[in-house]
Amino acid sequence: MITAHVVGASGYAAAELIRLIDRHPSVALGVLESRSQPGIPVADVFPWLPHVHVELEERGTALARVRSDDVVFLAGGHELAREQAPALLAKGARVIDLSDAFRLEVNAGEAVYGFPERYRAQIAGARLIANPGCYVTAALLALVPLEPLADRIAQVVIDAKSGITGAGRTPAVTSMFAEVDGDVRAYGLAGHRHGAEIVQESRAAGINAPIVFSPHVVPLKSGLLADVYLIPRSPLSRGDVLALYERFYAANPFVTVFRNLRAPHLPALVGTNDAHLAVAERDGVVHVLSAIDNLGKGAAGQAIQNMNLVLGLPEEQGFDARTTVG
Amino acid sequence: MITAHVVGASGYAAAELIRLIDRHPSVALGVLESRSQPGIPVADVFPWLPHVHVELEERGTALARVRSDDVVFLAGGHELAREQAPALLAKGARVIDLSDAFRLEVNAGEAVYGFPERYRAQIAGARLIANPGCYVTAALLALVPLEPLADRIAQVVIDAKSGITGAGRTPAVTSMFAEVDGDVRAYGLAGHRHGAEIVQESRAAGINAPIVFSPHVVPLKSGLLADVYLIPRSPLSRGDVLALYERFYAANPFVTVFRNLRAPHLPALVGTNDAHLAVAERDGVVHVLSAIDNLGKGAAGQAIQNMNLVLGLPEEQGFDARTTVG
Amino acid sequence: MITAHVVGASGYAAAELIRLIDRHPSVALGVLESRSQPGIPVADVFPWLPHVHVELEERGTALARVRSDDVVFLAGGHELAREQAPALLAKGARVIDLSDAFRLEVNAGEAVYGFPERYRAQIAGARLIANPGCYVTAALLALVPLEPLADRIAQVVIDAKSGITGAGRTPAVTSMFAEVDGDVRAYGLAGHRHGAEIVQESRAAGINAPIVFSPHVVPLKSGLLADVYLIPRSPLSRGDVLALYERFYAANPFVTVFRNLRAPHLPALVGTNDAHLAVAERDGVVHVLSAIDNLGKGAAGQAIQNMNLVLGLPEEQGFDARTTVG
Amino acid sequence: MITAHVVGASGYAAAELIRLIDRHPSVALGVLESRSQPGIPVADVFPWLPHVHVELEERGTALARVRSDDVVFLAGGHELAREQAPALLAKGARVIDLSDAFRLEVNAGEAVYGFPERYRAQIAGARLIANPGCYVTAALLALVPLEPLADRIAQVVIDAKSGITGAGRTPAVTSMFAEVDGDVRAYGLAGHRHGAEIVQESRAAGINAPIVFSPHVVPLKSGLLADVYLIPRSPLSRGDVLALYERFYAANPFVTVFRNLRAPHLPALVGTNDAHLAVAERDGVVHVLSAIDNLGKGAAGQAIQNMNLVLGLPEEQGFDARTTVG
Repeated sequence: MITAHVVGASGYAAAELIRLIDRHPSVALGVLESRSQPGIPVADVFPWLPHVHVELEERGTALARVRSDDVVFLAGGHELAREQAPALLAKGARVIDLSDAFRLEVNAGEAVYGFPERYRAQIAGARLIANPGCYVTAALLALVPLEPLADRIAQVVIDAKSGITGAGRTPAVTSMFAEVDGDVRAYGLAGHRHGAEIVQESRAAGINAPIVFSPHVVPLKSGLLADVYLIPRSPLSRGDVLALYERFYAANPFVTVFRNLRAPHLPALVGTNDAHLAVAERDGVVHVLSAIDNLGKGAAGQAIQNMNLVLGLPEEQGFDARTTVG
Repeated sequence: MITAHVVGASGYAAAELIRLIDRHPSVALGVLESRSQPGIPVADVFPWLPHVHVELEERGTALARVRSDDVVFLAGGHELAREQAPALLAKGARVIDLSDAFRLEVNAGEAVYGFPERYRAQIAGARLIANPGCYVTAALLALVPLEPLADRIAQVVIDAKSGITGAGRTPAVTSMFAEVDGDVRAYGLAGHRHGAEIVQESRAAGINAPIVFSPHVVPLKSGLLADVYLIPRSPLSRGDVLALYERFYAANPFVTVFRNLRAPHLPALVGTNDAHLAVAERDGVVHVLSAIDNLGKGAAGQAIQNMNLVLGLPEEQGFDARTTVG
Repeated sequence: MITAHVVGASGYAAAELIRLIDRHPSVALGVLESRSQPGIPVADVFPWLPHVHVELEERGTALARVRSDDVVFLAGGHELAREQAPALLAKGARVIDLSDAFRLEVNAGEAVYGFPERYRAQIAGARLIANPGCYVTAALLALVPLEPLADRIAQVVIDAKSGITGAGRTPAVTSMFAEVDGDVRAYGLAGHRHGAEIVQESRAAGINAPIVFSPHVVPLKSGLLADVYLIPRSPLSRGDVLALYERFYAANPFVTVFRNLRAPHLPALVGTNDAHLAVAERDGVVHVLSAIDNLGKGAAGQAIQNMNLVLGLPEEQGFDARTTVG
Repeated sequence: MITAHVVGASGYAAAELIRLIDRHPSVALGVLESRSQPGIPVADVFPWLPHVHVELEERGTALARVRSDDVVFLAGGHELAREQAPALLAKGARVIDLSDAFRLEVNAGEAVYGFPERYRAQIAGARLIANPGCYVTAALLALVPLEPLADRIAQVVIDAKSGITGAGRTPAVTSMFAEVDGDVRAYGLAGHRHGAEIVQESRAAGINAPIVFSPHVVPLKSGLLADVYLIPRSPLSRGDVLALYERFYAANPFVTVFRNLRAPHLPALVGTNDAHLAVAERDGVVHVLSAIDNLGKGAAGQAIQNMNLVLGLPEEQGFDARTTVG
């Protein structure tokens, strides 16, 4: 059994990591470290995990106890990640960071960008993984396979809708029930840091069209839908895009491409590491719908998938078995 | 006092019409006709209107009782509208139809398209008004003022999010709480009849760029946000668009244009006939956010606004007074 | 015009006060004072009030500017109330406190308990009103009229369900969307301060049976339902209770007693100062359902009703006209 | 592998049965029969089960194909159950009925009441199981262990709050999103058939105090909380009740009794067959909080638990492993 520690263990993505590690057959829960709530059992911090009795521990505990080849998930923001990652790596740990601390410099530095559908081979040997965020993952799932068609795309518009857990568990007026309920809240109107990351990784995948990205909070806990509109420079069809997706995702266990014309259903994804892709075409524009659980494939699920790759375990281990959707 | 009848009085838009007529100082509730629930008091059919004790009446009652110069709202679908409108008009009634029965042929026939911000003068003398739907209204509010910039727009993408009351009150699995809660549901992937109406009215307003329209149901009762992306052919700025909106809407009491960069808040619009427009610009694309209450400016509110114009009443009569937002 | 100030103007009840004062025909908005957000316009603090452009002001401004006979609403908690009320009263202001600072000592001190259905006469001449909380109001509406039957009641069980705005707008994990959505949360299992207030005021109204009180948060913004079970000592019928309610509330404009056997509908009450009472009887127990808007009759609405009484204005002024429910 | 068929496979409980059978290691999905949607794949009927590609089949198919010792779940209402159960039993099938067709006569007839925590031994050898409903299960979990204290209880008040999936998937205005959202709806004011069942089974367990039962719909999909108030005839303490619960449930894998004073959290139960019991005491009344997933322990989960007992399998098989809560 490998030991997996979680540093910054008081948010929603951390809770989902703890749930997934707890049920993983090859990995055991190590130190769960939280600056804000040391000494409190997980079941009291996250009442939806009533069967996890481990107590959260003080800042610094993971670093003190980590052994070579342990896995450490950093789930506490980019400052924490920049502070702790070097020392953890120095002790021989494999580090998977869920913040954006290492995402915008992955090609320059030691970190590998943790998007397995593109970087599976590099992830397998990595010591430091920059796990992508939820919006970026949904966008890349739709864009990365399109490299062969890149010249035909004049503009990409991404209109994304996310559940509120994507905003974290730090109390804020904007995350309160009475503010989220009954509204669809557009934000990032002046630009959003995830937009830059989408552009960086799309460029790396050969998609050079300009990309406009628009995130929204919708009144649901978890789930993310990105509507990706491909404005063509020269004719582009649903069939073209569907064929590329089917080829690209054929060997990817978590990504399902809908062959018939139906929309993703977010509750089907919640609690999974799955992604559902649908493709439509109207008025000359190809409309891709990319759906994930923002805490699953958009955060903790993908982090566990990356861990499996790093450890040489079967990529699907620890997740419920699923079969492809027709 | 003018008498206003409602035919097809068992849906959400009809309930909002009844609420608005009941509080209108110049208009009194006449016959409320419902094929499905005759004999039942409004307060029992719509428990959120506990103070309206009028009973619904049988199909045909409005036609039998209507007098010349009464107003009749048709809120029961396009078949009902096609069936009843001619006879009602023949009796001298003014007819405001909330279905799409007369929308796609308004220029050819007798009906006037009930979008006051463009057709105010024609509405004033009309006998038959084709009241636009919620998606179309939100889209037109963003597009119609742009005629002077039309040549600079290469493509329009409209990604709209609506509360479930837009789907009506006829029971269906897709409108049930347990299906809507927790999901963002894209639909109309193969095309949506409101898309054709948006195109027709945009063309009439001189907007000739191709338009792709994508509706979604989000888990809220009422409220509609349309994100309208203007992909430029030649440079287009936030300032250009904002200036046109401010000029176009200067004399329109219900439309507020946000000068500073903030997003609409749907709960501010629920129960009103107001519309809020915000304009952003990112990566060369102008992003307009057009927000209304789908039952207000998107249905019953606009119908009352049209009635006020038809009757020569102040356009804002019967609505709560509002002042502009800075 | 009377001037009304609001001190502690950053919570949900304060927002509702501002909305109600803004539309009141005899009262004008004075100082809106907020320690946490001075200098910010109301429309930015509360996006559902986009038409209120007044800026919040610094702590102490109301006290500095208040004139004799102004009304001051204290909406900032009991410490603020104890601190500011004496000085405001000394300057001749009428003070309506929404906290529980003066509620548990009202009979001893200068404050009058602001439950108009029982203390209307005393409120009319008062300078300091202790405005009851939401749970207490719903409970008292069901219990106070029962004095003539008090000997027949062996035990009262109150199981109450409230929208989350009752918990205030100070950010807390327990008020976040992702915690409230999908749950019904019982709290106060070891006792709740509102329970003591219910007992105090029930005793004052002659109800001496033991009372157990159990509050719950349900996933809705606003609205409160109290199920009040009367366990009889000697036979008690629905008819007995209904008769007392009809007599007691005959001259009360905001309280409607349902004669037929149907349950209250919370959305009918939101935004109003109304209360709906229904009475059922099963298995020898009389079951009263008392429903209000927790921010309306349970907070700001009742405060405005008290202000109207204090100022000698018609009790219903400033609220939408309503007619009784049959 | 045992084959399990589901007749009446178009509702929420049926969907949960299908999900649980699909992942059960000892049981395979047989015929899924639906009068309303034959020929449609499960994944299209229930979009949250995208990986189940089996098609629903026509009425009568299960009866035609069933073999001796197969298990048949009847999830289509009491008429269907009365019609099909005899013929299925005659063919040697084990029948588990989720309707109330056989619940109110279980002691007289052949059916065993499927509440394993009380009737485990009888269930083990049964051919026909009457699976209790959600409200009844939550109530019995709180009441059945109290037999030794029965003489001390003067009155029981049960105030229950359920998610809307408890009302089934047949479209109805009362189950629509726009009616459920924002409300807490009391119903059954004149009596509810589940009340009679609670009384019957409580009497069978020696609880003779009068019981008043009050169900409510709250705006959530799944989850049920029953607040059970025990009004004492002679002193009754939290400790007395807690001690009985701990003894009674010691050997029951799915029931957790909270030793410390905290309330159940419904999201912790959704998708499980677990039940959480908390005990409080205030003002002389013992207040028990009994929480389940209405589709889990309240329907499909309990049905699978019963199936495991009938088949001699480990009681927890097919459910996620859980450990007790402290």
